Amino acid sequence: MYIVPESAIADILTRRDAFEAIEKVFAAMSAGDAYNFPVIREAIGHEDALYGFKGGFDGKGMSLGLKAGGYWPHNLEQRGLINHQSTVFLFDADTGKVAAMVGGNLLTALRTAAASSVSIKHLARKDAKVMGMIGAGHQAKFQLRAALETHSFDKVIGWNRNPAALTTLADVAAEFGLPFEAVALDEMTQADVVISITSVFSPVFGAAHISAGTHVACMGTDTIGKQEAQTDLLAKATIFTDEIAQSVTLGEAQHVVAAGLKTRGDINELGAVINGAHAGRSADDEITLFDGTGVGLQDLAVSASIVEIAKAKGIGMEVDF
Amino acid sequence: MYIVPESAIADILTRRDAFEAIEKVFAAMSAGDAYNFPVIREAIGHEDALYGFKGGFDGKGMSLGLKAGGYWPHNLEQRGLINHQSTVFLFDADTGKVAAMVGGNLLTALRTAAASSVSIKHLARKDAKVMGMIGAGHQAKFQLRAALETHSFDKVIGWNRNPAALTTLADVAAEFGLPFEAVALDEMTQADVVISITSVFSPVFGAAHISAGTHVACMGTDTIGKQEAQTDLLAKATIFTDEIAQSVTLGEAQHVVAAGLKTRGDINELGAVINGAHAGRSADDEITLFDGTGVGLQDLAVSASIVEIAKAKGIGMEVDF
Repeated sequence: MYIVPESAIADILTRRDAFEAIEKVFAAMSAGDAYNFPVIREAIGHEDALYGFKGGFDGKGMSLGLKAGGYWPHNLEQRGLINHQSTVFLFDADTGKVAAMVGGNLLTALRTAAASSVSIKHLARKDAKVMGMIGAGHQAKFQLRAALETHSFDKVIGWNRNPAALTTLADVAAEFGLPFEAVALDEMTQADVVISITSVFSPVFGAAHISAGTHVACMGTDTIGKQEAQTDLLAKATIFTDEIAQSVTLGEAQHVVAAGLKTRGDINELGAVINGAHAGRSADDEITLFDGTGVGLQDLAVSASIVEIAKAKGIGMEVDF
Repeated sequence: MYIVPESAIADILTRRDAFEAIEKVFAAMSAGDAYNFPVIREAIGHEDALYGFKGGFDGKGMSLGLKAGGYWPHNLEQRGLINHQSTVFLFDADTGKVAAMVGGNLLTALRTAAASSVSIKHLARKDAKVMGMIGAGHQAKFQLRAALETHSFDKVIGWNRNPAALTTLADVAAEFGLPFEAVALDEMTQADVVISITSVFSPVFGAAHISAGTHVACMGTDTIGKQEAQTDLLAKATIFTDEIAQSVTLGEAQHVVAAGLKTRGDINELGAVINGAHAGRSADDEITLFDGTGVGLQDLAVSASIVEIAKAKGIGMEVDF
């Protein structure tokens, strides 16, 4: 089996590779060639940790395996470790033998960023000029960097509950030679593309903050009860997602469906747009909304890509197992 | 992290270590200190394989992790590999970082054998003389060897659909200097302890084949629909199990409960007997029946023991991950 430690990922996985792996696996999911297993997520009653497994099988890319790990909220403060800790294990689909182990922390950040970028490529207006960010935590800069590489914007605007944290986004905008402006939520109507990346149980923005024609990627909701956007925005927008089953149960669309304003049948797969089975955006004034819930197949797809590159570059190690 | 490959397990894990790890974890489960996560089991639609994850957390032994793998039915014939392929991954419960990876094939055989042995220690009559085996497949010799180490018997008898396969059991009996007799199912009434280790959907034996006072360990049923013993035996016996939730859904007790002859409340935990919370056998003529369904915590417990011994002996390898 092949081992690629966490420390090696930064030198291996480019945002371009992550983007291509995610685009391909969303397409495979929508075509019925790849599926995710039920997710295991357990509050284990120790260190306030959430731990679990996200597995799946891509019969086209032949990726089989899981990401295991979770959220240890006291890691950073008490041990100087990242709170999100995860590891990806790939298996040989022909034999069931373990094939590879890959550090999952940075790759999770990059694959999550890639998902919103893929949605921007396929759903945003081609003439989008202003990129808007809602949230400025650790993950936000990954999302913004990937977005700015995917589409050519003129300007970045951002809102965060604590405005001081927006400097990290201003720095990313500067990397791309773009001006950055900290805005009030009301001014988010300037944006042609919005990424929200917050972890909240009360929505912070809604239809009043989003202009006609905008593409919104809601990337922060992966749990029952969480909600980033008010239901009026979800009701108004055309909704796309990575996996419909997750979107309506633990994703951003859970509330609009529970309220009876949309049904499961109203939620579209981003993969169908990639495959050409769904036309995607139908008008310049349509609001499109991508509900990025995060699925195990994303982790497997990016890990398979990492292992391939690592082997070619001679990074990592082969272990007789 | 620490890696113990499959090839090293035979030199590390003794049956005594497996027995002690299983006895301890059954006790921890019953005391509420350890619990199993929901099991993921998927027919992936490739190579007729069944693949999945059995995870859990033992807050007393501080074992956290999962066994991943499954059943690849064409491995042996087409590739010369074992059909059951699995790997155990242990995590640091304090941080969520992966801590160890352990080859899971031999350990699964040894932990399954240990489970029936633990049931024999705690539920069989002390004066049991005749050990009976139903089934003579790959796993049967592991079960018999563990049983003969746990209790002193005078004789081994065995039945198998194909009697020719019983020679492997005769060989194990000979290792212990015991006579072996191939019998008809009707003659299984001679036995004081019976282990059934078959994988069948139609029961092969029942109350007519088991004498009063016998302890029966049914080790072959781990799937909805499977059934080793006729319901009349389950109805008559006092039932113990590793995990009640599995016993009544996919274990040997599923049918007697479905038939309304017993309720979930009639099924007892073997761990409670180990802990002294349940008296166990109450009379010399009582039939006790252990429904061994197999849980992830068994794999974690034995793996933790393997890693400890491997480190002490300098077997395996530390990898910077």
